[in-house]
Amino acid sequence: MQTILILGSGKSSVYLINYLLDTADAKKRRIILADLSLEIATQKLRNHKSGKAIWIDLDDVENRKAIIKNSDVVISMLPAFLHPIIAKDCLELGKHFFSASYESEEMREMKSEIEEKNLLFLNECGLDPGLDHMSAMKIIHCEKENGNKITAFRSFTGGLLAPESEDNPWKYKFTWNPRNVVLAGQGTSRYIQNGSYKYVPYHMLYRRLEKISFEKVGDFDGYPNRDSLSYRKIYGLDDIRTLLRGTLRRAGFCQSWDVFVQLGITDDSFKMQLPSGFTHKMFFNSFLPYHETKSVVEKLRELLPWVNTEIVEKIEWLGMFSNIELPKTSGSPASILEEILKEKWKLGPQDKDMIVMQHLFEIETTDGKKEMISSLVCKGENHEYTAMAKTVGLPLAIAVDLFLEGEINVRGLHVPVLPEIYNPILDALRKEGVEFEEKVRAL
Amino acid sequence: MQTILILGSGKSSVYLINYLLDTADAKKRRIILADLSLEIATQKLRNHKSGKAIWIDLDDVENRKAIIKNSDVVISMLPAFLHPIIAKDCLELGKHFFSASYESEEMREMKSEIEEKNLLFLNECGLDPGLDHMSAMKIIHCEKENGNKITAFRSFTGGLLAPESEDNPWKYKFTWNPRNVVLAGQGTSRYIQNGSYKYVPYHMLYRRLEKISFEKVGDFDGYPNRDSLSYRKIYGLDDIRTLLRGTLRRAGFCQSWDVFVQLGITDDSFKMQLPSGFTHKMFFNSFLPYHETKSVVEKLRELLPWVNTEIVEKIEWLGMFSNIELPKTSGSPASILEEILKEKWKLGPQDKDMIVMQHLFEIETTDGKKEMISSLVCKGENHEYTAMAKTVGLPLAIAVDLFLEGEINVRGLHVPVLPEIYNPILDALRKEGVEFEEKVRAL
Repeated sequence: MQTILILGSGKSSVYLINYLLDTADAKKRRIILADLSLEIATQKLRNHKSGKAIWIDLDDVENRKAIIKNSDVVISMLPAFLHPIIAKDCLELGKHFFSASYESEEMREMKSEIEEKNLLFLNECGLDPGLDHMSAMKIIHCEKENGNKITAFRSFTGGLLAPESEDNPWKYKFTWNPRNVVLAGQGTSRYIQNGSYKYVPYHMLYRRLEKISFEKVGDFDGYPNRDSLSYRKIYGLDDIRTLLRGTLRRAGFCQSWDVFVQLGITDDSFKMQLPSGFTHKMFFNSFLPYHETKSVVEKLRELLPWVNTEIVEKIEWLGMFSNIELPKTSGSPASILEEILKEKWKLGPQDKDMIVMQHLFEIETTDGKKEMISSLVCKGENHEYTAMAKTVGLPLAIAVDLFLEGEINVRGLHVPVLPEIYNPILDALRKEGVEFEEKVRAL
Repeated sequence: MQTILILGSGKSSVYLINYLLDTADAKKRRIILADLSLEIATQKLRNHKSGKAIWIDLDDVENRKAIIKNSDVVISMLPAFLHPIIAKDCLELGKHFFSASYESEEMREMKSEIEEKNLLFLNECGLDPGLDHMSAMKIIHCEKENGNKITAFRSFTGGLLAPESEDNPWKYKFTWNPRNVVLAGQGTSRYIQNGSYKYVPYHMLYRRLEKISFEKVGDFDGYPNRDSLSYRKIYGLDDIRTLLRGTLRRAGFCQSWDVFVQLGITDDSFKMQLPSGFTHKMFFNSFLPYHETKSVVEKLRELLPWVNTEIVEKIEWLGMFSNIELPKTSGSPASILEEILKEKWKLGPQDKDMIVMQHLFEIETTDGKKEMISSLVCKGENHEYTAMAKTVGLPLAIAVDLFLEGEINVRGLHVPVLPEIYNPILDALRKEGVEFEEKVRAL
């Protein structure tokens, strides 16, 4: 009897839980789902006889360690900052650890001890990071083995709406953490293009767009995402002359979102204390210059001359020009904006989300240059069974399953860039309908 | 015999030292000038028989306290972060403390103890903060006493070049800390205009300009500076509907500087590690999109369509499009830019700097509305005897002189907003040629 402990029964856990429950009886496994809310955990297990919901208080060290001690493998779906704490417990108690979060510095400090104890700590095994690594590395390794050289690699990912649910002017709703969406892109993005280092400040990001097309679901705008340069090392592409990782939004979104960025409404660095009764229009107006007679829209179009009717309509649709009171009057501009958007961009019960990912490679072969485009489109079923939960949860569930089956045999601290990890996971994902399509053409 | 201890003999100390030395013999005072460089301190005292230069190591607590113990009054011209340390020593040893820096929270925590010991700790007694408070408060108090109501107050200050030294296309050279000039305006500026709160993000700041004119020295562009709202309390103008504090640059400067802001070249939040041999043009280009054939200037004008020939010429004059190697290849973009500008915007020995300050009041009187404009223009003599050193140092020197003469009798923790402090200081400044001119017109 093997025991899998899943920590956290949030929105992203549903496919993970179900995948592991489905074979639990046959494979003689017990699934413990631990959460601060026993109710939610119980509900997620749907009375499955191999599942057990328990209440956990992460601050209670004894409680936490007792629960971890009774398991063989721990999957953490908790917020990333908690992972080092859980990982340390796992190290102490000799348990394997899996997560979909970035490998942290604290995690790296445990590396030699993880190896000594012959454990596997596998991080970055979700969607992004996760599926992006696996699908890219499969191509990179394959091309290298064939004696080819990758000269350019650009990779874009988006967590969006399925086209059939794009029923508002933004063609967007929140399918993951709203705060992260509002703050997306802050800082300076870095990449390399044809040997030239490129640095893009936040306030320029939503103008440095590139059209990315998918055969079945149309066009998107991609913008550079944080530090692409660090991926040279992770992917073993140290000499590559073009490397860019980006984020996708439905075409048209970024230009309108840029209004909020330009005006400073996504600013999270200071707190506003607005008088009660402050309206949406007053809030928006506080980021525009003063004028005795001009309307908010007139001032907006004067300040940002590229703002067209379509953009104005999108902003109006959010209620920004209305005399309705703000849902929140104290907090950073970004947090007030988030509160406004949460209402407007709420996923309806039957809404379907969609994950799109595309890798664009330029490859030198003995027969000349070629371009390879590898694309993933994954649609959700409804607001609970989302493509986001599927693509984050399934890679993790599959990794744990394969590990317990002895089909993944590596030990130590890893992210899924090794063939012995990503090959069986990608194979299993294909059976679940999560599959990349490749297109190759000569350049 | 009274002993005045001056800590720090940097560029801003020259007028301060001379003013106090000039009357030291007659007033039976000893001036101790303490600095990490005994050589510079000695030189600044010009063999004056009432002056004594000493070496100080601020990290050596015993050394520091022994020096402070032997004085009656301490003037700190050190970097602001050191003030709490010096102030604590003064509190312990019962010495009066004067500075031209902002009153810090740590300083406020000492308030009751300062009062108990009957000491005077006077901060913000330089130019800005300092002269701005004094000159504004004199008008505010006077108008209030006459039963008038101030409905709007805007105040602008600039540390610039005298017109006769504006001999480069930017009409600008560094007359104070270059780093502060490069980073000026970062964060979100806040003010209130006709009852409307206004928030301006950094990347919008250099477009939210207002023309400010001086009869004798021409036109400047003013932009809002940090948190003007906090001045409502300091100046006792809680109900005012317009309050803005701003920074002045020579007309035309801001539009060109905005290129650096827009491209992200003033970013101080991350470090670049550029290969050696990296040129000015390559550096500038790394903030522009990639293009196979287009020149840096073409790409610049495409990205920022408002960039005209005049702006391009200014940037070219800085060497930004040259193939000369960078003076520095590691550090934040802002720090690399600073290094480039230091060469180009260096004050020549005979260059004259200039301080401009203007207060614009709107006042309701029983006879109707009036506008009052109070302006200060102060020119330096050369690169050593600067207007900056004069307007920062003289208010402090005068404050200490008047205090020792018994003409300022207040005790406790203060900034110069009380008539008993600002009136005698402004009178003495007038004798030194530092004087505001007032113009009033009916509205």
